[in-house]
Amino acid sequence: MFQIRTDLALEARELYREGKSGEVPGVEVEKSEIDEEVEVTRVKIIDEQGSSIMGKPKGSYITIECRKLKSADADLKDKVSKILAKEISKLLPKKENMSTLVVGLGNWNVTPDALGPQVVSKILVTRHLFKMYNKTQDPGMTSVSAISPGVMGITGIETGDVIKGIVEKSTPDLVIAIDALASRKMERVSSTIQIATTGISPGSGVGNSRKELSQKTLGVPVIAIGVPTVVDAATMTNDTIKMVIKALQQQADRESGFFKMLSELKDEDKYMLIREVLEPYGANVIVTTKEIDKIITDISQIIANAINIALHPGIDLKDVNRYLN
Amino acid sequence: MFQIRTDLALEARELYREGKSGEVPGVEVEKSEIDEEVEVTRVKIIDEQGSSIMGKPKGSYITIECRKLKSADADLKDKVSKILAKEISKLLPKKENMSTLVVGLGNWNVTPDALGPQVVSKILVTRHLFKMYNKTQDPGMTSVSAISPGVMGITGIETGDVIKGIVEKSTPDLVIAIDALASRKMERVSSTIQIATTGISPGSGVGNSRKELSQKTLGVPVIAIGVPTVVDAATMTNDTIKMVIKALQQQADRESGFFKMLSELKDEDKYMLIREVLEPYGANVIVTTKEIDKIITDISQIIANAINIALHPGIDLKDVNRYLN
Amino acid sequence: MFQIRTDLALEARELYREGKSGEVPGVEVEKSEIDEEVEVTRVKIIDEQGSSIMGKPKGSYITIECRKLKSADADLKDKVSKILAKEISKLLPKKENMSTLVVGLGNWNVTPDALGPQVVSKILVTRHLFKMYNKTQDPGMTSVSAISPGVMGITGIETGDVIKGIVEKSTPDLVIAIDALASRKMERVSSTIQIATTGISPGSGVGNSRKELSQKTLGVPVIAIGVPTVVDAATMTNDTIKMVIKALQQQADRESGFFKMLSELKDEDKYMLIREVLEPYGANVIVTTKEIDKIITDISQIIANAINIALHPGIDLKDVNRYLN
Amino acid sequence: MFQIRTDLALEARELYREGKSGEVPGVEVEKSEIDEEVEVTRVKIIDEQGSSIMGKPKGSYITIECRKLKSADADLKDKVSKILAKEISKLLPKKENMSTLVVGLGNWNVTPDALGPQVVSKILVTRHLFKMYNKTQDPGMTSVSAISPGVMGITGIETGDVIKGIVEKSTPDLVIAIDALASRKMERVSSTIQIATTGISPGSGVGNSRKELSQKTLGVPVIAIGVPTVVDAATMTNDTIKMVIKALQQQADRESGFFKMLSELKDEDKYMLIREVLEPYGANVIVTTKEIDKIITDISQIIANAINIALHPGIDLKDVNRYLN
Repeated sequence: MFQIRTDLALEARELYREGKSGEVPGVEVEKSEIDEEVEVTRVKIIDEQGSSIMGKPKGSYITIECRKLKSADADLKDKVSKILAKEISKLLPKKENMSTLVVGLGNWNVTPDALGPQVVSKILVTRHLFKMYNKTQDPGMTSVSAISPGVMGITGIETGDVIKGIVEKSTPDLVIAIDALASRKMERVSSTIQIATTGISPGSGVGNSRKELSQKTLGVPVIAIGVPTVVDAATMTNDTIKMVIKALQQQADRESGFFKMLSELKDEDKYMLIREVLEPYGANVIVTTKEIDKIITDISQIIANAINIALHPGIDLKDVNRYLN
Repeated sequence: MFQIRTDLALEARELYREGKSGEVPGVEVEKSEIDEEVEVTRVKIIDEQGSSIMGKPKGSYITIECRKLKSADADLKDKVSKILAKEISKLLPKKENMSTLVVGLGNWNVTPDALGPQVVSKILVTRHLFKMYNKTQDPGMTSVSAISPGVMGITGIETGDVIKGIVEKSTPDLVIAIDALASRKMERVSSTIQIATTGISPGSGVGNSRKELSQKTLGVPVIAIGVPTVVDAATMTNDTIKMVIKALQQQADRESGFFKMLSELKDEDKYMLIREVLEPYGANVIVTTKEIDKIITDISQIIANAINIALHPGIDLKDVNRYLN
Repeated sequence: MFQIRTDLALEARELYREGKSGEVPGVEVEKSEIDEEVEVTRVKIIDEQGSSIMGKPKGSYITIECRKLKSADADLKDKVSKILAKEISKLLPKKENMSTLVVGLGNWNVTPDALGPQVVSKILVTRHLFKMYNKTQDPGMTSVSAISPGVMGITGIETGDVIKGIVEKSTPDLVIAIDALASRKMERVSSTIQIATTGISPGSGVGNSRKELSQKTLGVPVIAIGVPTVVDAATMTNDTIKMVIKALQQQADRESGFFKMLSELKDEDKYMLIREVLEPYGANVIVTTKEIDKIITDISQIIANAINIALHPGIDLKDVNRYLN
Repeated sequence: MFQIRTDLALEARELYREGKSGEVPGVEVEKSEIDEEVEVTRVKIIDEQGSSIMGKPKGSYITIECRKLKSADADLKDKVSKILAKEISKLLPKKENMSTLVVGLGNWNVTPDALGPQVVSKILVTRHLFKMYNKTQDPGMTSVSAISPGVMGITGIETGDVIKGIVEKSTPDLVIAIDALASRKMERVSSTIQIATTGISPGSGVGNSRKELSQKTLGVPVIAIGVPTVVDAATMTNDTIKMVIKALQQQADRESGFFKMLSELKDEDKYMLIREVLEPYGANVIVTTKEIDKIITDISQIIANAINIALHPGIDLKDVNRYLN
């Protein structure tokens, strides 16, 4: 089956359902509007069929959507941090004296890929304090460590191996991995946060293909948090062409051969045709917004705040906004 | 007359000539291949008709094209610096004890708009040394000052006014202004350098619209150096659609009504249609490459080197590569 | 008369009074403790004699001291912002539709000298909005512009000339200039804010000597805000030696010739001796703290917040903390 | 025995020999002047006694000294790179298909501590290419990986553990660790490069105390490369006081009690006295130069070039200067 690659479970589902009715087989979906600004969608892939259609491993994919996020005021940012913190909290292992390693994936030299490293730079790190004072628990904090390993082009080492080595030495109970994603639609860039219980799939993200980061590879549960920061140029052109053709068709003779040809052209053929045409543009074309630097700063703060209050029971948003920034 | 806006004289000419034969009236063009890697095109707008068709003031527009520039090795970079330096030299006022102000336009917080500020940070500044030693001339150097005024959103002041104020106080004989441009084709991004004797036109560049920077407004000649660093999303989609349609037409029934409709659709209507479709993507969509940070660093070095050797007769490329970087 | 140079009026006064009783002639001083954390001292130089002894022009020098500032929590930061805003407000010209230019002095490439540019990057700039909407007044805002001109080594142009040119084109009613200072005592680094109604004196600050920025040179009132970010190495050594000798003297034979010699050694001779000894260390030795990067970030926020709420009547600290950062 | 802590074997030796004649027992020293600009000193600690006096593990400490390094032109930089490369080459394990992990220690947020991370950012990383093309050897390159793990305050994890984990997963044959050091003399800041075959000792460097990085802890040889970037404030004051007192003594009555007291004061007592006096200055006082940002950039390039040509036999300095920067 042809699949336009997307990092978002929400988009994989949309793609399957285009022109079809009914839910994806093997997939359960639950939508809830928090209020007029924020919507949460839970996509659960429950069996192999669902996994194969969606192109993603079995597990839960929670998407927080907030159209105004890219130009949010502080109150909206705080609201989204709280919603995200709540979702993260539900996924935490029920364990006393839990310790967490927060991993920022991506390349800090490429702005749209720098989300993970920027989140990590804002995490309240405490593991060394637990060690220093020889404590295993604290009423207000849990043990948190954090690292941005860099990408393979920077280190020469598979990112998965770097993380695996650090996990073995620092023995966290949980890994939270943050990564920049590619979306099919510009409107999702910096307005959507996806949380996946399945870890990071191979070959996803803005950067190059990479190894899996999951319970299977690391030996501890992995929560993946991702935000689309770019759109694939071929995808964007494809979508635009579809819409242009749709607009044209309304004025066209539906019986003409060319119209029929266009209508019958298979999605994958059309996509391939566009890729070919875009070829001279190079594999590295990205479509993003002029404000990407500012957006990465803002969203990394929202995610870091959420992680900080989800992991440290004694700390609330007022504290992180005022004392940690 | 409909015009797809472009900062490059070369592209304005291409657009006019699409489907037409013959040169743009009021425009003279001279092409010279330096070697198999670099090509120089001189476009001269000689009268009002040419200026109106091209959407640019009368004057000379020199374009240096080098496809491999974005992945150039040091030898190719040096070659392009030398070619650029030679072109700049030809445009310098014939004046003893000449002094130059180099102006880096654009916003240093937005990577693809940071070309100008990055060039300025690599300019060999000497004006204060002339003042300090109370000299008016030197066999090896001329008086050079440099500033990156920032954009209006950062200062609250029209960039043209900031420059005008500094020109009045520091009284240079020449202004060289560097700016990031938008191109219609991804293949031109970071492979094309345009030098214009007309200064900076209002409303061009990657950033927001701005006032003219020219001999008329500043009272001294203004040489503008620009490099495309982004592609307009509507333009890219438009071009891709054209190519896709062209590919489809080869297999289509040329007599069909839909084919005819597509063929007869005016360029401006099609462009407007695409802009409409792209609307939700926002005005700030940019298309660029993943390596834009590195490319800006490289090209700013090439331009700064060219300016440094063009303005300082006693300095050659070996010196700037080794002592100034 | 011998003078150890200091940028702080408070320290100039201390130096004069060492071993003397009574106030500096021509100087009035008023101290007020805001609470146990913050102290405000107003030094007024009222005549030529005071000016000559203090090595500073006639005018008011207000110093806000807060020992815990370098490790302040957000509440203390807010308190200091408010106190600073109140002092700035008292100094604003009583004028309708007042417009202000905020100038960040110093070199952004040298961390302890980057205070001014960092403050400017956090100023709420509005002048272009007044122009765009063709307004001269607004109930909540005044017209504010901001620029960091860079130092002479970067631009080749006297900073005073750059500012003068911009002032002439943008015609503000007031200039607020922010600068990093050198202190004689490490304990004042990043715990003291000085406001001077006299503008910037020539040759002060962390960077190189510079021209005056004052009502006399710019034609509009200049409020200077400075914070010590470094200590002069010779000064620090001098102070330490004094303290060491004092400690030793308590156990020494007060009648011995060497003791007498030390006691009678003139301050200026001792200082010269130390300078000589430090010579091989170079003129560029700075003494600062390991946290200087973080401190510059924090204090620039405090000052920017103060300026933002002092200049924009409709904006309070909650707004700037939440919407502007 | 009292020891003023120093990271440099050269300074430990100087301290021991102050006022003494003869070499440190258990230590062999060999000095060679390369030319009038560069001097290389080899200090070999050969037994336990030497180790205990010097406060350093047994092994070789090679120091390259070049007074003009901080204002070096490109030719001098290249010369030092070559000398350093030659010394590194001599220390490489004689092994076919050798692979190396380069580790940049220190905190990238604190300029004088950022040397290691900056070197790492300029290393030619190849390990992933060997993996990608499934090669174990290459005539021109060896397998090189590189990482800057950050300091414990950033990650919450002992740096030694992070490195140990990565070494276990990526199995290099050699670790080269780069670190910023503290010197006793300002003249050594950024003019001295120390290479140690013993790895990194606990508690050295500019940052906080840390675990050992050595063959013992990592299981592979560790070459440590360090450059002093700061001077300890107490040390600098101590040295200055000594020199001042010496100058004073020449004019003093050598028979006076106070003179005697000063002369007889033990070094450790004097140092403690100064520390006490400096106390209010805080533990984080650093003494460095105004140009530290530029110096770190320059020296990191020199070291990275040296490592690049030492590890990759097919690459010479012309290549790294032109193709890698």
